[in-house]
Amino acid sequence: MLISPAQLSPRQEEILTASRKLFRERGFEGASMRDLAEVLQIKPASLYSHYRSKEDILWEIAQRCADEFFEEVMPHTGLAESAPQRLGRMVEAHLRVVIRNQDASAIFFREWEHLAEPRRRAFAARIRAYEGAFAQVIADGMAKGDFQPRPAHLAADALLASLNWIHRWYKSGGALSHEEITAHLTEMAIASLRPIPSTHA
Amino acid sequence: MLISPAQLSPRQEEILTASRKLFRERGFEGASMRDLAEVLQIKPASLYSHYRSKEDILWEIAQRCADEFFEEVMPHTGLAESAPQRLGRMVEAHLRVVIRNQDASAIFFREWEHLAEPRRRAFAARIRAYEGAFAQVIADGMAKGDFQPRPAHLAADALLASLNWIHRWYKSGGALSHEEITAHLTEMAIASLRPIPSTHA
Repeated sequence: MLISPAQLSPRQEEILTASRKLFRERGFEGASMRDLAEVLQIKPASLYSHYRSKEDILWEIAQRCADEFFEEVMPHTGLAESAPQRLGRMVEAHLRVVIRNQDASAIFFREWEHLAEPRRRAFAARIRAYEGAFAQVIADGMAKGDFQPRPAHLAADALLASLNWIHRWYKSGGALSHEEITAHLTEMAIASLRPIPSTHA
Repeated sequence: MLISPAQLSPRQEEILTASRKLFRERGFEGASMRDLAEVLQIKPASLYSHYRSKEDILWEIAQRCADEFFEEVMPHTGLAESAPQRLGRMVEAHLRVVIRNQDASAIFFREWEHLAEPRRRAFAARIRAYEGAFAQVIADGMAKGDFQPRPAHLAADALLASLNWIHRWYKSGGALSHEEITAHLTEMAIASLRPIPSTHA
Protein backbone atom coordinates (compact mmCIF):
# COMPACT_ATOMS: atom_id res chain seq x y z
CA MET A 1 0.00 0.00 0.00
CA LEU A 2 2.98 2.32 0.42
CA ILE A 3 3.55 4.39 -2.65
CA SER A 4 5.61 7.34 -1.45
CA PRO A 5 8.54 8.55 -3.47
CA ALA A 6 12.13 8.01 -2.46
CA GLN A 7 14.04 9.57 0.41
CA LEU A 8 13.77 13.34 0.69
CA SER A 9 16.60 15.83 1.11
CA PRO A 10 16.67 17.86 4.36
CA ARG A 11 15.57 20.91 2.38
CA GLN A 12 12.60 19.01 0.94
CA GLU A 13 11.63 17.84 4.42
CA GLU A 14 11.75 21.46 5.53
CA ILE A 15 9.54 22.52 2.64
CA LEU A 16 7.00 19.81 3.40
CA THR A 17 6.90 20.67 7.11
CA ALA A 18 6.29 24.35 6.38
CA SER A 19 3.70 23.48 3.73
CA ARG A 20 1.72 21.19 6.02
CA LYS A 21 1.47 23.97 8.55
CA LEU A 22 0.58 26.64 5.99
CA PHE A 23 -1.97 24.47 4.15
CA ARG A 24 -3.60 23.63 7.45
CA GLU A 25 -3.74 27.26 8.58
CA ARG A 26 -4.89 28.88 5.34
CA GLY A 27 -6.16 25.95 3.34
CA PHE A 28 -4.45 24.83 0.15
CA GLU A 29 -6.26 27.46 -1.95
CA GLY A 30 -5.38 30.24 0.48
CA ALA A 31 -1.63 29.54 0.52
CA SER A 32 0.58 30.49 -2.43
CA MET A 33 4.10 29.37 -3.40
CA ARG A 34 5.14 32.95 -2.67
CA ASP A 35 3.73 32.71 0.89
CA LEU A 36 5.56 29.45 1.31
CA ALA A 37 8.87 30.87 0.09
CA GLU A 38 8.40 33.73 2.55
CA VAL A 39 7.81 31.41 5.49
CA LEU A 40 10.88 29.41 4.50
CA GLN A 41 12.90 32.58 3.91
CA ILE A 42 14.03 31.38 0.51
CA LYS A 43 13.52 32.79 -2.99
CA PRO A 44 10.51 31.49 -4.93
CA ALA A 45 12.94 30.27 -7.63
CA SER A 46 14.70 28.13 -5.05
CA LEU A 47 11.39 26.66 -3.94
CA TYR A 48 10.50 25.81 -7.55
CA SER A 49 13.82 24.02 -7.96
CA HIS A 50 12.58 21.49 -5.38
CA TYR A 51 8.91 21.28 -6.34
CA ARG A 52 7.51 22.31 -9.68
CA SER A 53 4.14 23.31 -8.24
CA LYS A 54 2.13 23.74 -5.08
CA GLU A 55 0.15 20.71 -6.13
CA ASP A 56 3.31 18.57 -6.29
CA ILE A 57 3.89 19.50 -2.66
CA LEU A 58 0.31 18.65 -1.74
CA TRP A 59 0.63 15.30 -3.48
CA GLU A 60 3.81 14.39 -1.64
CA ILE A 61 2.37 15.41 1.73
CA ALA A 62 -0.85 13.54 1.08
CA GLN A 63 0.91 10.33 0.05
CA ARG A 64 3.27 10.34 3.01
CA CYS A 65 0.46 10.99 5.41
CA ALA A 66 -1.65 8.21 3.91
CA ASP A 67 1.34 5.87 4.26
CA GLU A 68 1.51 6.70 7.92
CA PHE A 69 -2.18 5.96 8.53
CA PHE A 70 -2.00 2.69 6.62
CA GLU A 71 1.20 1.52 8.33
CA GLU A 72 -0.16 2.22 11.77
CA VAL A 73 -3.73 0.98 11.39
CA MET A 74 -3.71 -1.92 8.94
CA PRO A 75 -1.73 -4.39 11.09
CA HIS A 76 -4.72 -4.46 13.46
CA THR A 77 -7.39 -5.32 10.90
CA GLY A 78 -6.68 -9.02 10.64
CA LEU A 79 -5.97 -9.95 14.26
CA ALA A 80 -7.63 -13.05 15.69
CA GLU A 81 -9.79 -10.99 18.03
CA SER A 82 -13.42 -9.95 18.12
CA ALA A 83 -14.53 -7.11 15.86
CA PRO A 84 -14.94 -4.69 18.80
CA GLN A 85 -11.40 -5.46 19.97
CA ARG A 86 -9.88 -5.12 16.50
CA LEU A 87 -11.79 -1.94 15.84
CA GLY A 88 -10.69 -0.52 19.20
CA ARG A 89 -7.05 -1.08 18.25
CA MET A 90 -7.60 0.47 14.83
CA VAL A 91 -9.21 3.53 16.41
CA GLU A 92 -6.35 3.91 18.87
CA ALA A 93 -3.81 3.60 16.07
CA HIS A 94 -5.71 6.14 13.97
CA LEU A 95 -5.76 8.61 16.87
CA ARG A 96 -2.03 8.11 17.45
CA VAL A 97 -1.33 9.28 13.90
CA VAL A 98 -3.78 12.18 14.13
CA ILE A 99 -2.30 13.47 17.39
CA ARG A 100 1.29 12.94 16.29
CA ASN A 101 0.76 14.57 12.96
CA GLN A 102 -1.98 17.18 13.22
CA ASP A 103 -0.89 19.28 10.25
CA ALA A 104 -0.68 16.34 7.88
CA SER A 105 -4.00 15.01 9.13
CA ALA A 106 -5.70 18.13 7.80
CA ILE A 107 -4.40 17.10 4.36
CA PHE A 108 -5.51 13.50 4.74
CA PHE A 109 -8.98 14.52 5.90
CA ARG A 110 -9.69 17.39 3.59
CA GLU A 111 -7.12 19.35 1.63
CA TRP A 112 -6.30 16.42 -0.68
CA GLU A 113 -9.53 17.31 -2.46
CA HIS A 114 -7.60 20.12 -4.15
CA LEU A 115 -5.41 17.64 -6.04
CA ALA A 116 -5.93 17.74 -9.82
CA GLU A 117 -6.80 14.64 -11.83
CA PRO A 118 -5.56 11.94 -12.14
CA ARG A 119 -4.01 12.32 -8.69
CA ARG A 120 -7.28 13.27 -7.05
CA ARG A 121 -8.91 10.06 -8.19
CA ALA A 122 -5.91 8.00 -7.11
CA PHE A 123 -5.92 9.55 -3.69
CA ALA A 124 -9.69 9.23 -3.29
CA ALA A 125 -9.20 5.50 -3.88
CA ARG A 126 -6.66 5.32 -1.05
CA ILE A 127 -9.06 7.14 1.28
CA ARG A 128 -11.85 4.78 0.30
CA ALA A 129 -9.60 1.80 0.97
CA TYR A 130 -8.75 3.20 4.37
CA GLU A 131 -12.38 3.87 5.30
CA GLY A 132 -13.26 0.51 3.78
CA ALA A 133 -10.97 -1.29 6.22
CA PHE A 134 -12.98 0.21 9.08
CA ALA A 135 -16.26 -0.59 7.35
CA GLN A 136 -15.11 -4.21 6.90
CA VAL A 137 -14.40 -4.76 10.58
CA ILE A 138 -17.67 -3.03 11.45
CA ALA A 139 -19.54 -5.30 9.02
CA ASP A 140 -17.86 -8.33 10.63
CA GLY A 141 -19.07 -7.15 14.02
CA MET A 142 -22.59 -6.62 12.70
CA ALA A 143 -22.63 -10.12 11.21
CA LYS A 144 -21.65 -11.59 14.59
CA GLY A 145 -24.19 -9.56 16.56
CA ASP A 146 -21.53 -7.47 18.29
CA PHE A 147 -22.72 -4.31 16.54
CA GLN A 148 -26.14 -2.94 15.58
CA PRO A 149 -26.92 -3.67 11.92
CA ARG A 150 -26.59 -0.49 9.81
CA PRO A 151 -25.05 0.45 6.47
CA ALA A 152 -21.42 -0.30 7.38
CA HIS A 153 -19.94 2.54 5.34
CA LEU A 154 -22.20 5.13 6.96
CA ALA A 155 -21.21 3.79 10.38
CA ALA A 156 -17.50 3.82 9.47
CA ASP A 157 -17.66 7.38 8.19
CA ALA A 158 -19.52 8.62 11.27
CA LEU A 159 -17.05 6.82 13.51
CA LEU A 160 -14.02 8.32 11.75
CA ALA A 161 -15.62 11.77 11.82
CA SER A 162 -16.10 11.45 15.59
CA LEU A 163 -12.30 11.08 15.84
CA ASN A 164 -10.97 13.36 13.14
CA TRP A 165 -12.04 16.72 14.60
CA ILE A 166 -9.37 16.20 17.25
CA HIS A 167 -6.63 17.30 14.82
CA ARG A 168 -8.09 20.82 14.93
CA TRP A 169 -8.60 20.87 18.66
CA TYR A 170 -5.87 18.86 20.36
CA LYS A 171 -3.16 20.83 22.13
CA SER A 172 -0.27 19.07 23.80
CA GLY A 173 -0.28 20.02 27.49
CA GLY A 174 -4.05 20.70 27.51
CA ALA A 175 -6.42 19.76 30.33
CA LEU A 176 -6.70 16.19 28.98
CA SER A 177 -3.68 14.09 28.08
CA HIS A 178 -3.62 12.41 24.70
CA GLU A 179 -4.02 9.07 26.49
CA GLU A 180 -7.21 10.28 28.17
CA ILE A 181 -8.58 11.69 24.93
CA THR A 182 -7.75 8.47 23.11
CA ALA A 183 -9.42 6.34 25.78
CA HIS A 184 -12.63 8.41 25.79
CA LEU A 185 -12.96 8.67 22.03
CA THR A 186 -12.19 4.98 21.52
CA GLU A 187 -14.80 3.92 24.08
CA MET A 188 -17.37 6.26 22.54
CA ALA A 189 -16.61 5.00 19.04
CA ILE A 190 -17.08 1.36 20.00
CA ALA A 191 -20.15 2.16 22.10
CA SER A 192 -21.73 4.01 19.14
CA LEU A 193 -21.91 0.69 17.28
CA ARG A 194 -23.27 -1.50 20.08
CA PRO A 195 -26.63 -3.21 19.59
CA ILE A 196 -29.54 -0.99 20.60
CA PRO A 197 -31.25 -2.62 23.58
CA SER A 198 -34.83 -3.58 22.87
CA THR A 199 -37.29 -1.27 24.62
CA HIS A 200 -39.33 -4.35 25.58
CA ALA A 201 -36.44 -5.96 27.45
CA MET B 1 -30.02 34.51 20.78
CA LEU B 2 -31.01 35.79 17.32
CA ILE B 3 -28.78 38.62 16.25
CA SER B 4 -29.13 38.73 12.49
CA PRO B 5 -29.54 42.03 10.72
CA ALA B 6 -32.81 43.19 9.20
CA GLN B 7 -34.59 41.80 6.18
CA LEU B 8 -32.46 41.38 3.06
CA SER B 9 -33.23 42.53 -0.46
CA PRO B 10 -33.68 39.85 -3.15
CA ARG B 11 -30.30 40.84 -4.57
CA GLN B 12 -28.64 40.42 -1.19
CA GLU B 13 -30.24 36.99 -0.78
CA GLU B 14 -28.86 36.08 -4.19
CA ILE B 15 -25.39 37.24 -3.18
CA LEU B 16 -25.50 35.23 0.03
CA THR B 17 -26.69 32.09 -1.72
CA ALA B 18 -23.90 32.30 -4.30
CA SER B 19 -21.35 33.09 -1.58
CA ARG B 20 -22.31 30.12 0.57
CA LYS B 21 -21.79 27.84 -2.38
CA LEU B 22 -18.50 29.44 -3.42
CA PHE B 23 -17.08 29.58 0.12
CA ARG B 24 -17.98 25.94 0.62
CA GLU B 25 -16.41 24.87 -2.68
CA ARG B 26 -13.21 26.91 -2.54
CA GLY B 27 -13.01 27.91 1.09
CA PHE B 28 -13.31 31.53 2.17
CA GLU B 29 -9.63 32.24 1.46
CA GLY B 30 -9.83 30.65 -1.98
CA ALA B 31 -12.82 32.72 -3.16
CA SER B 32 -12.44 36.39 -4.13
CA MET B 33 -15.01 39.15 -4.55
CA ARG B 34 -14.08 39.08 -8.23
CA ASP B 35 -14.93 35.33 -8.42
CA LEU B 36 -18.19 36.03 -6.70
CA ALA B 37 -19.11 38.87 -9.07
CA GLU B 38 -18.35 36.52 -11.96
CA VAL B 39 -20.61 33.79 -10.63
CA LEU B 40 -23.39 36.34 -10.11
CA GLN B 41 -22.73 37.89 -13.51
CA ILE B 42 -22.57 41.37 -12.03
CA LYS B 43 -19.82 43.99 -11.92
CA PRO B 44 -17.54 43.95 -8.86
CA ALA B 45 -18.62 47.56 -8.19
CA SER B 46 -22.23 46.44 -7.98
CA LEU B 47 -21.27 43.69 -5.53
CA TYR B 48 -19.45 46.21 -3.35
CA SER B 49 -22.53 48.42 -3.29
CA HIS B 50 -24.30 45.63 -1.38
CA TYR B 51 -21.44 44.38 0.80
CA ARG B 52 -18.34 46.37 1.59
CA SER B 53 -16.15 43.31 1.90
CA LYS B 54 -16.00 39.55 1.56
CA GLU B 55 -15.82 39.37 5.31
CA ASP B 56 -19.10 41.28 5.66
CA ILE B 57 -20.70 38.57 3.54
CA LEU B 58 -19.13 35.84 5.64
CA TRP B 59 -20.40 37.51 8.80
CA GLU B 60 -23.95 37.75 7.53
CA ILE B 61 -23.97 34.14 6.35
CA ALA B 62 -22.48 32.91 9.61
CA GLN B 63 -24.99 34.80 11.76
CA ARG B 64 -27.99 33.65 9.78
CA CYS B 65 -26.82 30.09 9.83
CA ALA B 66 -26.22 30.21 13.58
CA ASP B 67 -29.73 31.62 14.03
CA GLU B 68 -31.12 28.65 12.17
CA PHE B 69 -29.26 26.10 14.30
CA PHE B 70 -30.30 27.84 17.52
CA GLU B 71 -33.94 28.21 16.50
CA GLU B 72 -34.24 24.58 15.52
CA VAL B 73 -32.29 22.95 18.35
CA MET B 74 -32.75 25.03 21.48
CA PRO B 75 -36.49 24.39 21.97
CA HIS B 76 -35.58 20.77 22.72
CA THR B 77 -33.01 21.41 25.45
CA GLY B 78 -35.44 22.09 28.28
CA LEU B 79 -38.14 19.49 27.64
CA ALA B 80 -39.39 17.43 30.56
CA GLU B 81 -37.88 14.25 29.17
CA SER B 82 -34.84 12.15 29.96
CA ALA B 83 -31.45 13.34 28.79
CA PRO B 84 -31.19 10.65 26.09
CA GLN B 85 -34.61 11.66 24.73
CA ARG B 86 -33.84 15.38 24.78
CA LEU B 87 -30.45 14.81 23.22
CA GLY B 88 -32.00 12.60 20.54
CA ARG B 89 -34.36 15.42 19.58
CA MET B 90 -31.53 17.94 19.55
CA VAL B 91 -29.46 15.68 17.29
CA GLU B 92 -32.38 15.21 14.90
CA ALA B 93 -32.97 18.96 14.81
CA HIS B 94 -29.28 19.62 14.20
CA LEU B 95 -29.23 17.14 11.32
CA ARG B 96 -32.35 18.73 9.82
CA VAL B 97 -30.52 22.05 9.58
CA VAL B 98 -27.34 20.45 8.22
CA ILE B 99 -29.16 18.54 5.50
CA ARG B 100 -31.43 21.46 4.59
CA ASN B 101 -28.58 23.91 4.46
CA GLN B 102 -25.38 22.13 3.50
CA ASP B 103 -23.56 25.17 2.13
CA ALA B 104 -24.23 27.32 5.19
CA SER B 105 -23.27 24.45 7.47
CA ALA B 106 -19.74 24.57 6.07
CA ILE B 107 -19.60 28.16 7.33
CA PHE B 108 -21.00 27.29 10.74
CA PHE B 109 -18.60 24.38 11.17
CA ARG B 110 -15.43 25.88 9.81
CA GLU B 111 -15.19 28.90 7.54
CA TRP B 112 -16.31 31.33 10.30
CA GLU B 113 -12.75 31.00 11.60
CA HIS B 114 -11.73 33.44 8.85
CA LEU B 115 -13.73 36.26 10.46
CA ALA B 116 -11.54 39.09 11.73
CA GLU B 117 -11.74 40.34 15.32
CA PRO B 118 -13.93 41.33 17.08
CA ARG B 119 -16.41 39.32 15.01
CA ARG B 120 -14.39 36.14 15.26
CA ARG B 121 -14.51 36.23 19.05
CA ALA B 122 -18.23 37.02 19.02
CA PHE B 123 -18.97 34.14 16.72
CA ALA B 124 -16.74 31.72 18.63
CA ALA B 125 -18.87 32.53 21.69
CA ARG B 126 -22.04 31.58 19.79
CA ILE B 127 -20.46 28.31 18.72
CA ARG B 128 -19.39 27.60 22.29
CA ALA B 129 -22.91 28.34 23.51
CA TYR B 130 -24.31 25.95 20.94
CA GLU B 131 -21.88 23.15 21.80
CA GLY B 132 -22.43 23.99 25.46
CA ALA B 133 -26.15 23.25 25.16
CA PHE B 134 -25.28 19.75 24.00
CA ALA B 135 -22.65 19.37 26.72
CA GLN B 136 -25.24 20.44 29.32
CA VAL B 137 -27.76 17.78 28.35
CA ILE B 138 -24.96 15.22 28.19
CA ALA B 139 -23.78 16.23 31.67
CA ASP B 140 -27.37 15.87 32.93
CA GLY B 141 -27.48 12.38 31.51
CA MET B 142 -24.14 11.51 33.10
CA ALA B 143 -25.35 12.78 36.49
CA LYS B 144 -28.43 10.55 36.25
CA GLY B 145 -26.49 7.46 35.16
CA ASP B 146 -27.99 7.47 31.66
CA PHE B 147 -24.58 8.21 30.12
CA GLN B 148 -21.04 7.09 30.86
CA PRO B 149 -19.18 9.72 32.91
CA ARG B 150 -16.67 11.60 30.72
CA PRO B 151 -15.62 15.21 30.21
CA ALA B 152 -18.97 16.48 28.88
CA HIS B 153 -17.44 18.95 26.43
CA LEU B 154 -15.22 16.31 24.85
CA ALA B 155 -18.25 14.05 24.50
CA ALA B 156 -20.35 16.85 22.99
CA ASP B 157 -17.67 17.79 20.48
CA ALA B 158 -17.15 14.16 19.41
CA LEU B 159 -20.89 13.70 19.08
CA LEU B 160 -21.33 16.82 16.93
CA ALA B 161 -18.34 15.82 14.80
CA SER B 162 -19.95 12.42 14.17
CA LEU B 163 -22.88 14.32 12.62
CA ASN B 164 -21.28 17.28 10.91
CA TRP B 165 -19.37 15.41 8.17
CA ILE B 166 -22.73 14.69 6.57
CA HIS B 167 -22.86 18.21 5.11
CA ARG B 168 -19.97 17.26 2.83
CA TRP B 169 -21.34 13.89 1.91
CA TYR B 170 -25.12 14.03 1.80
CA LYS B 171 -26.74 14.03 -1.62
CA SER B 172 -30.46 14.26 -2.01
CA GLY B 173 -31.66 11.18 -3.88
CA GLY B 174 -28.71 9.05 -2.72
CA ALA B 175 -28.91 5.41 -1.64
CA LEU B 176 -30.07 6.42 1.85
CA SER B 177 -32.90 8.88 2.46
CA HIS B 178 -32.28 11.75 4.83
CA GLU B 179 -34.70 10.10 7.28
CA GLU B 180 -32.61 6.91 7.26
CA ILE B 181 -29.36 8.82 7.68
CA THR B 182 -30.86 10.85 10.51
CA ALA B 183 -32.16 7.73 12.28
CA HIS B 184 -28.80 5.91 12.05
CA LEU B 185 -26.67 8.86 13.10
CA THR B 186 -28.99 9.77 15.97
CA GLU B 187 -28.98 6.20 17.31
CA MET B 188 -25.20 6.01 17.02
CA ALA B 189 -24.78 9.37 18.75
CA ILE B 190 -26.94 8.37 21.72
CA ALA B 191 -25.36 4.90 21.87
CA SER B 192 -21.87 6.45 21.95
CA LEU B 193 -22.72 7.97 25.35
CA ARG B 194 -24.32 4.92 26.98
CA PRO B 195 -22.73 3.48 30.12
CA ILE B 196 -19.95 0.99 29.35
CA PRO B 197 -21.09 -2.40 30.60
CA SER B 198 -18.83 -3.77 33.33
CA THR B 199 -16.67 -6.64 32.06
CA HIS B 200 -17.43 -8.50 35.30
CA ALA B 201 -21.17 -8.41 34.72
